[in-house]
Amino acid sequence: MRVLDAKHCAINTATLGFQAPINLVIDAIARHGFAGIAPWRREIEGQSIKAVAKQIRDAGLEVTGYCRSTYIPANSRAEFEANIADNKLALNDAAELGAKSFVLVVGTLRDLVSARAQVRDGVAMLLDHARPLNVRLALEPLHPVYAADRSCITLAEEALDICDAIEGLVADPQLGILVDVYHLWWSATLKRDVERAGTAKRIFGFHVSDWLNPTVDILNDRGMMGDGVIDLKSIRQMVETAGYQGLVETEIFSTQNWWKKPMDETLRVIKERIITSV
Amino acid sequence: MRVLDAKHCAINTATLGFQAPINLVIDAIARHGFAGIAPWRREIEGQSIKAVAKQIRDAGLEVTGYCRSTYIPANSRAEFEANIADNKLALNDAAELGAKSFVLVVGTLRDLVSARAQVRDGVAMLLDHARPLNVRLALEPLHPVYAADRSCITLAEEALDICDAIEGLVADPQLGILVDVYHLWWSATLKRDVERAGTAKRIFGFHVSDWLNPTVDILNDRGMMGDGVIDLKSIRQMVETAGYQGLVETEIFSTQNWWKKPMDETLRVIKERIITSV
Repeated sequence: MRVLDAKHCAINTATLGFQAPINLVIDAIARHGFAGIAPWRREIEGQSIKAVAKQIRDAGLEVTGYCRSTYIPANSRAEFEANIADNKLALNDAAELGAKSFVLVVGTLRDLVSARAQVRDGVAMLLDHARPLNVRLALEPLHPVYAADRSCITLAEEALDICDAIEGLVADPQLGILVDVYHLWWSATLKRDVERAGTAKRIFGFHVSDWLNPTVDILNDRGMMGDGVIDLKSIRQMVETAGYQGLVETEIFSTQNWWKKPMDETLRVIKERIITSV
Repeated sequence: MRVLDAKHCAINTATLGFQAPINLVIDAIARHGFAGIAPWRREIEGQSIKAVAKQIRDAGLEVTGYCRSTYIPANSRAEFEANIADNKLALNDAAELGAKSFVLVVGTLRDLVSARAQVRDGVAMLLDHARPLNVRLALEPLHPVYAADRSCITLAEEALDICDAIEGLVADPQLGILVDVYHLWWSATLKRDVERAGTAKRIFGFHVSDWLNPTVDILNDRGMMGDGVIDLKSIRQMVETAGYQGLVETEIFSTQNWWKKPMDETLRVIKERIITSV
């Protein structure tokens, strides 16, 4: 297994708590020697995307992903179509940013059967839009604790079934999944799922953070790598053995801890922890 | 699908908040017309089990399950063996109570691989002890949100794999699983897992409650059936179509709501909700 350092790693800007405008965030990430960035729409929309893209490019950063989709399923056809239209605009922006992937956090409904059907339909429509833009779609299965409010897709297996159903097995897929340790670490089928994803070349990203025990807030109390219970080295080995060679991306939602710290401190700790704990 | 009423249903005593001694709890459950009870060790140990068993029998109640195992995996062999010994004593009590199943909530460790191996070994040891006692072991896969502190077994598939590995496919299995909607409702593979469990005759219990959205406390904020997002009727249909004919058991952990109400009120609401919502 390769020894990680910052040049193998990307920073998902959510990790830094959205404290500063995107130009300062880009500067900080590049100054600390990281190789990639995954910005959020809230930091980008309403700005000159060309200028942001140029700054990122000039800083030598890869845009690993653009976060994230508007939730897809809805209780009316009109709302569903509005969600798809909104995601198409975001896909255009992802292309302009030069993002390798557009991250799909898909949403959910009380009626899971309908939610899942709408997600399948919606992702197929977005893939048609993404193809000429040369942006990949990265489905992110979320932890099952979010099944009621954020994602009807919780298992990697389920996400891969959707990929296979929509795109089929192709040499150079444009639809794949994100492997985020926070969402998938607990699963007894993780190795099987990662191997399947790797064989299909569908691992479009690898996100790290840690599961704190106890977790005080299920949404915004993710831990820094090494501070929780996840066996990060084992999971990285699975993902790399399955053929993933992309950047390792840190994504930590932590309103009460990391989001309150200066960006430079968080980035410095990440650089240590990717060596000791990932 | 059969129309449910109290005579098809059991009450897990945790639902009533452990407010009263077991003799009053038994009386209340029987008085409301329920057909079964699943008591907890904290209510039973230190009492005359013969007397409790007689009261339950005289009240015409079935003991669907005895809750629950001491966590199995440990960081030392001595501790592991103490856990097994403790569970053997509880199994003796389960037999004396006439419980159909002893409920296994298995525990976990930071090292999931070791935890899972110890659970496999420990369950095999307990099955040897349970066999002559004629008590079944009901493995309960817990929601993945508990993987760090309560159960390394989270998927029904995983629990069924353990059953198959230990007991093999037999006509009259003594090792099976609990299907608890709270733990499994979110899974896209639920139907497949339930069908597999039914084919193997391994569905030893069916627990209902509801997933509240939002959930304010991940351990003790379960909802009354009908107050949350779970499609209970669909899941009951899956379970009954798979061949389950046992009682439908209500188990609600709710420190801030149901546990504060008088037992009679909770039991009355359950009787309504099993008709309208399950």
